[in-house]
Amino acid sequence: MTRFALTLEFDGGPFMGLQRQDHGPSVQQAVEEAAFRVTGEDVRMHAAGRTDSGVHALGMVAHIDVEKPFDPFRLMEALNYHLKPDPVAVLACEVKPDDWHARFSCIGRAYEYRIVNRRAPLTLEKGKAWAVTRPLDAKAMHQAAQSLVGRHDFTTFRSVHCQSQSPVKTLDRLDVSREGEQVIVRAEARSFLHHQVRSMVGTLVLVGLGQWRVEQVAEALHARDRTALGLNAPPDGLYFVRAVYPD
Amino acid sequence: MTRFALTLEFDGGPFMGLQRQDHGPSVQQAVEEAAFRVTGEDVRMHAAGRTDSGVHALGMVAHIDVEKPFDPFRLMEALNYHLKPDPVAVLACEVKPDDWHARFSCIGRAYEYRIVNRRAPLTLEKGKAWAVTRPLDAKAMHQAAQSLVGRHDFTTFRSVHCQSQSPVKTLDRLDVSREGEQVIVRAEARSFLHHQVRSMVGTLVLVGLGQWRVEQVAEALHARDRTALGLNAPPDGLYFVRAVYPD
Repeated sequence: MTRFALTLEFDGGPFMGLQRQDHGPSVQQAVEEAAFRVTGEDVRMHAAGRTDSGVHALGMVAHIDVEKPFDPFRLMEALNYHLKPDPVAVLACEVKPDDWHARFSCIGRAYEYRIVNRRAPLTLEKGKAWAVTRPLDAKAMHQAAQSLVGRHDFTTFRSVHCQSQSPVKTLDRLDVSREGEQVIVRAEARSFLHHQVRSMVGTLVLVGLGQWRVEQVAEALHARDRTALGLNAPPDGLYFVRAVYPD
Repeated sequence: MTRFALTLEFDGGPFMGLQRQDHGPSVQQAVEEAAFRVTGEDVRMHAAGRTDSGVHALGMVAHIDVEKPFDPFRLMEALNYHLKPDPVAVLACEVKPDDWHARFSCIGRAYEYRIVNRRAPLTLEKGKAWAVTRPLDAKAMHQAAQSLVGRHDFTTFRSVHCQSQSPVKTLDRLDVSREGEQVIVRAEARSFLHHQVRSMVGTLVLVGLGQWRVEQVAEALHARDRTALGLNAPPDGLYFVRAVYPD
């Protein structure tokens, strides 16, 4: 048996999410079916994160165990061949020790959230960003975001479906910056609660629109109450960017 | 009557091209139908360029004449409302003098061509770039491109369907640069022949792959012969970026 780490890029649009679902297509199913066609083995994929329906990835990391011997490059090529026409691609493939685990060995996760802030609707970026038509104050959003950085009880920013044992997480980075007509939010942590990034972005947008004061974000955090939440940003703008491992 | 200049962004994927066609949807038809719904008038659109099926635009300029008085901002908003769900958006709208013409007043056009140069197939950029899997030497491509800059007979790089009176054009810029896994070609001229940018990019890719010597591009140009051409790059990677007008 060989454990292979896969770096995946995917368009989340046509999927019900990363994880296998009974009620629709998933990235996991697409990769496992491609792996079956390549290896003839019932392969199970484990991923660093469980992205929701419509959420994209530029560098999701996952692993699969394969009994037959494969050269990593040839495995990657064969998986990409059999993944078509699904919008999932294997960008890199490498052999890992048997005790390495895409999810449990992961010590850092990075997300990016893309907002297009203009009057005109999206064309080329439809489904790939959140279109916010009224002007956003990205500096106020960044200022408010800093009150979320650090170790906190993130109950306010947690989905009711969240399976995490504790609502306490350490947020290492939450930067908001304007790049032309785009407002980009970059979030890094060891791990996130379910819907945490989208909840934080939705709330920061209320600040950017001037509907919430900068201080209200800290107040909502300290309330530890879902009903204190602003709004959940749509999945379209969210990208899983990077998984970090020791060394 | 008021003449309005429109700056358009569109995803060329679902269209048979910019210009109205008998056999399928066009950007022109989409804009004219939206304008009819807004104004009740049979409006005709004139554009700076006539992009092919599948070619995109980040800043195409067009004009329409409207009899009823309209505030430009409100006209833009109403057009965007009625353009949905077509992937065409009006980014800007301004009043122009009656003798200003989106096509005939235009003194410069800029295109960008996006190549994604990697083994893995496209996911998020499917239909938005040309995927070239073997490594490209962008420096050799740039060097070869410089032999095309200037005033030349571009017969070699002209479609058999080209309606231009003369094959002689002045190419002001043809830059090739690598940006991570992307190779970007930027082309500027007063005007281009039909398929000129895609023909030039296709030929430069042969140089980038090492199948053509750098000098062969100049040789093909001087041959003034369509059969001396390399290959036509697909429309997916081509973007009309900018139209330039006096002042």
